[in-house]
Amino acid sequence: MLVFQNDYSEGAHPAILKRLAETNMEQLPGYGTDHYCEAAQEKIRQACACPQAQVRFISGGTQTNQLVIDTMLQPYEGVVAAASGHVNVHEAGAIEATGHKVLTVPQHDGMIDAGELREYCETFYADDNHEHMVFPGMVYISHPTEYGTLYTKAQLEAIAAVCHEYHMPLFIDGARLGYGLVASGTDVTLPDIARIADVFYIGGTKVGALFGEAVVFTKGNMPKHFTAQIKQHGALMAKGWLMGLQFDTLFTDGLYTRIARNADEMAHRIREALRAKGYRMVYENTTNQIFVSFDHATIERLEREVRLGFMERYDDDHTVMRICTSWATTAESVDRLIGLL
Amino acid sequence: MLVFQNDYSEGAHPAILKRLAETNMEQLPGYGTDHYCEAAQEKIRQACACPQAQVRFISGGTQTNQLVIDTMLQPYEGVVAAASGHVNVHEAGAIEATGHKVLTVPQHDGMIDAGELREYCETFYADDNHEHMVFPGMVYISHPTEYGTLYTKAQLEAIAAVCHEYHMPLFIDGARLGYGLVASGTDVTLPDIARIADVFYIGGTKVGALFGEAVVFTKGNMPKHFTAQIKQHGALMAKGWLMGLQFDTLFTDGLYTRIARNADEMAHRIREALRAKGYRMVYENTTNQIFVSFDHATIERLEREVRLGFMERYDDDHTVMRICTSWATTAESVDRLIGLL
Amino acid sequence: MLVFQNDYSEGAHPAILKRLAETNMEQLPGYGTDHYCEAAQEKIRQACACPQAQVRFISGGTQTNQLVIDTMLQPYEGVVAAASGHVNVHEAGAIEATGHKVLTVPQHDGMIDAGELREYCETFYADDNHEHMVFPGMVYISHPTEYGTLYTKAQLEAIAAVCHEYHMPLFIDGARLGYGLVASGTDVTLPDIARIADVFYIGGTKVGALFGEAVVFTKGNMPKHFTAQIKQHGALMAKGWLMGLQFDTLFTDGLYTRIARNADEMAHRIREALRAKGYRMVYENTTNQIFVSFDHATIERLEREVRLGFMERYDDDHTVMRICTSWATTAESVDRLIGLL
Amino acid sequence: MLVFQNDYSEGAHPAILKRLAETNMEQLPGYGTDHYCEAAQEKIRQACACPQAQVRFISGGTQTNQLVIDTMLQPYEGVVAAASGHVNVHEAGAIEATGHKVLTVPQHDGMIDAGELREYCETFYADDNHEHMVFPGMVYISHPTEYGTLYTKAQLEAIAAVCHEYHMPLFIDGARLGYGLVASGTDVTLPDIARIADVFYIGGTKVGALFGEAVVFTKGNMPKHFTAQIKQHGALMAKGWLMGLQFDTLFTDGLYTRIARNADEMAHRIREALRAKGYRMVYENTTNQIFVSFDHATIERLEREVRLGFMERYDDDHTVMRICTSWATTAESVDRLIGLL
Repeated sequence: MLVFQNDYSEGAHPAILKRLAETNMEQLPGYGTDHYCEAAQEKIRQACACPQAQVRFISGGTQTNQLVIDTMLQPYEGVVAAASGHVNVHEAGAIEATGHKVLTVPQHDGMIDAGELREYCETFYADDNHEHMVFPGMVYISHPTEYGTLYTKAQLEAIAAVCHEYHMPLFIDGARLGYGLVASGTDVTLPDIARIADVFYIGGTKVGALFGEAVVFTKGNMPKHFTAQIKQHGALMAKGWLMGLQFDTLFTDGLYTRIARNADEMAHRIREALRAKGYRMVYENTTNQIFVSFDHATIERLEREVRLGFMERYDDDHTVMRICTSWATTAESVDRLIGLL
Repeated sequence: MLVFQNDYSEGAHPAILKRLAETNMEQLPGYGTDHYCEAAQEKIRQACACPQAQVRFISGGTQTNQLVIDTMLQPYEGVVAAASGHVNVHEAGAIEATGHKVLTVPQHDGMIDAGELREYCETFYADDNHEHMVFPGMVYISHPTEYGTLYTKAQLEAIAAVCHEYHMPLFIDGARLGYGLVASGTDVTLPDIARIADVFYIGGTKVGALFGEAVVFTKGNMPKHFTAQIKQHGALMAKGWLMGLQFDTLFTDGLYTRIARNADEMAHRIREALRAKGYRMVYENTTNQIFVSFDHATIERLEREVRLGFMERYDDDHTVMRICTSWATTAESVDRLIGLL
Repeated sequence: MLVFQNDYSEGAHPAILKRLAETNMEQLPGYGTDHYCEAAQEKIRQACACPQAQVRFISGGTQTNQLVIDTMLQPYEGVVAAASGHVNVHEAGAIEATGHKVLTVPQHDGMIDAGELREYCETFYADDNHEHMVFPGMVYISHPTEYGTLYTKAQLEAIAAVCHEYHMPLFIDGARLGYGLVASGTDVTLPDIARIADVFYIGGTKVGALFGEAVVFTKGNMPKHFTAQIKQHGALMAKGWLMGLQFDTLFTDGLYTRIARNADEMAHRIREALRAKGYRMVYENTTNQIFVSFDHATIERLEREVRLGFMERYDDDHTVMRICTSWATTAESVDRLIGLL
Repeated sequence: MLVFQNDYSEGAHPAILKRLAETNMEQLPGYGTDHYCEAAQEKIRQACACPQAQVRFISGGTQTNQLVIDTMLQPYEGVVAAASGHVNVHEAGAIEATGHKVLTVPQHDGMIDAGELREYCETFYADDNHEHMVFPGMVYISHPTEYGTLYTKAQLEAIAAVCHEYHMPLFIDGARLGYGLVASGTDVTLPDIARIADVFYIGGTKVGALFGEAVVFTKGNMPKHFTAQIKQHGALMAKGWLMGLQFDTLFTDGLYTRIARNADEMAHRIREALRAKGYRMVYENTTNQIFVSFDHATIERLEREVRLGFMERYDDDHTVMRICTSWATTAESVDRLIGLL
């Protein structure tokens, strides 16, 4: 069976497994206070060109979103997100479980618009009754988005400008950040992200690590007693060095972006083949997720040999499927997939 | 100054004040365990034609919504509401503060559509990934709605049918229930409400009481240890009889509906006058709230002598204002208002 | 039946009912923004000799405790209280329901000791591991305590000194504050309370009001967007003026302390009679609650004619009962009670 | 530097790393739905002699405690634990953060007593006022306890009997379960645990795994939509198979208990040496944690070469230190430690 279902189907890049084996019996202090975490933090600060960045490692994406949003919001605030945002749709209510509303603005290919965000805030503060409403307290975007699309640097800066005008930190979910940074046509670099966002995370789980996300607070704004708050959320790993070591490896000699590039290149080849055969791309992007509309006969035929992701009904005859590549996708499996299309 | 800003600008119907004075020094057990509460509960059960109804008194609407929704939902469930629903917009995040997401469906003049509700549920359960989403766990509607509109009996029954198909209790917010029950053209009675809803409340704060809402569980479905849960929400009044006495008064000799009728009749007169002068009603209804579009000169002129409610911008030149009557609105003040239009 | 079960068995002082009747049809803005609330706030500021005090009215004690504690604590903080504190024992988990732990220190006749509080804090901060523990974030005491006892001014100042050394606001639950302020032998005045506490409340429900507590923030430290937070907790009364009017009445011409004095005097008479007959007082105090140990035959005999409060088993043969007086207790009922002892 | 600070200083048993490497590029479905999880679940069911057991894998201990307690309790219930219980002291308020109070009973060498538990419940239900209190909803114990002590089978059965009499599930925190099962003198087996507890977990993080705890529901009582609830708590690992694979390895050919035995044997040797030199053991136990009282000169001397855990002040001259062994402790390091004592 070919598998293009998601970007977390395999373990870790072999360089990570090698280092885990090499350091396995080293005795290390717990909870992320070890020298591997320190080294990884320093490498991330350098890659971000953000010497003041405060970096912590959390084991998964939903956990990171829940933790960052809950610890940065005041109780009377909610987080503004695209209607299609992961925190709004696919986290089983993890944000609300911590007491905060997700306030939605329209999505455009998964992205929010700075103008509409400003309008949202203006309308809110113009309402005499806004003390009876949930205050917009931070803005959550994902880059790449849930549909694989990418903001331009100008778009990010415009969103950040609105955020700061209304005293809302900008939080960028970078679960697939690597695939965005190396995408064809993007003008957004990691230092740009660190400069524009108030907090963001560098996804490891989907980009070469066994697990782990590196949360980066860029303005000296890490919440007070953050360790206690991580612990309270059940998110403090005893063997925190497991994540330090992984990120140290990923941020040594550019491994993180190097392996991300493979995913985008493989996706590009599949996309070209799909286009050549006349299939319709539902969201245009240059990252590792392909959203394509197939008729039901095609789906039935493909699913005999390939595991794809189901997205949504397109029309009576078509369904949107997701084809996902990753750092681990091989050229051989791509060739086989293309042969089946 | 004329006041048509809302329906909670005055105290209570004089009959209530009279009984408060008469019973003031009677020594009563606390927390709603007194004989006035019992009498009121029995009168409500009879008015609802629902002998098995379990009735409790809560001091305000947001508190009631928060309490009912939180105690009836499982932790993994959210409440489905119209995008315009009070719980979604104007409760400062009270629902999310208890850990539950408000799941929205489109509103049509403040109402939800049974067909769209079914579609929402079908789509949810058809999604392979729905364990990563918030389960629709109950349905919240208001009757009258936030725009003063009323469901027909057939519409309520259709919504209830979807609710029960998907094992969701139907919760009707009746903050203004009185004004709905006596509205011209409605075919929905209090026994209908009690038969169709799984839980609802009879609003007192806006319909003649100093404060208080009577929550009615219609199917023997009051949450376990509900007193403890009320207490935990900070909502257990020491002198619970204050609400029992008020509802006992309101449900003696039909006082509740009799005084509600005044509000609808006064609103009808204002509406007729507005129409006669060519103003545009933004939501058509027959209850005590009038939503009318005024140009800015008219608003400026009126506001010198009348306090109205601001609703929302209509277009560049017009704004939607709310004119609200109540059980306490006098014919004289209506005459004066009409004179000013 | 004689009733000495609690101090919230009757309605309100007649002066309050009179004013409710007089102002009943006055049209007032909602949510505590009316002129009666303003007047009451000003009178309370003056009675407290605290011109900068920020005053808000909340309908009940548990609600007030939950709201104040939740809005003043950081998420990683708990509230320190006596093991016997109301928030620890008798609020059905209302504090924990908002996410905060109640951290207990020993109680001595219902009071905490400044030395033990300091020791608690020292031990906490000395622990290398304290980021894995709940931070002591504020201190809650009641005055009078749950056992009717009173702190001296020196004791309160000593507790406040520890609080401020460890950056914890001191919160005084004054559900029965009136009965404490006028108690025989106390050296604590209302201005003392306002000077020593960072936040406290003046109980109305148990001291002459139908319902309502006046929360006083004494240092310009009312939580940000407090109205929104009250609303979010379901605690924002539509007709907020009902509480403003009551407190305005209670703080006109010293009514609050005048009616409180009756309770303490009646309790004194009962206490003297109990002592004369050789009964044992379990907690010594001079306020309106008497905790007395009765053998079972006495209890059985008394309960035929008097409703008392059950406290706890004392030994195999005795039970501690509470005899409670209030602003409404009559000399006649006290005489009858004494006759029965 | 010798390290005896805790039992999570090293990575994983080499057999686990080997299998992670072997299976690294296998493409697996996410969220614990893979065949390694299934195999591990089946092996655990067999080791527990509990064919109906429902097994899930969670990445850490605090997360597991928070999740199990929150999903099994009703909102009005708290969890009963020893005052020294991990959930009460060292989880930064993770239980309260989900809305539940930790109700404490006395600890005796870290253990609770069935008789005192019954008394707690009797007193609770005998209190007329218990609807104003937090209901005891489940019982949490740890085995081994935080002090390394072990319940006997009779003690566990007595506690379970009280639990079931009062309709409370018994939850056993087995973060160090392996070290308890193989301890000298214990009569408690894994099938005993599975038979007596309603839910428990088998600790991996401290017993040979990189991370992971296996939660076992023994009575078909796994909470409804548990996957959604795990997700909502931020605890659903994308690559769930990482834990399945580890537990599959640990439960193949008795690896789990085999490696646990090493820890207890090493601790036994250290304990004998301590006793021979006249040191005082503060808690007697036969598992992998040694609590010993050292004078300050000894501590100063030792800490130059060994990293130990600080526990608490014993008296003016002595401090209780923890010496902790694990599956990874070598005989050589034990010899060196003994040489230093």
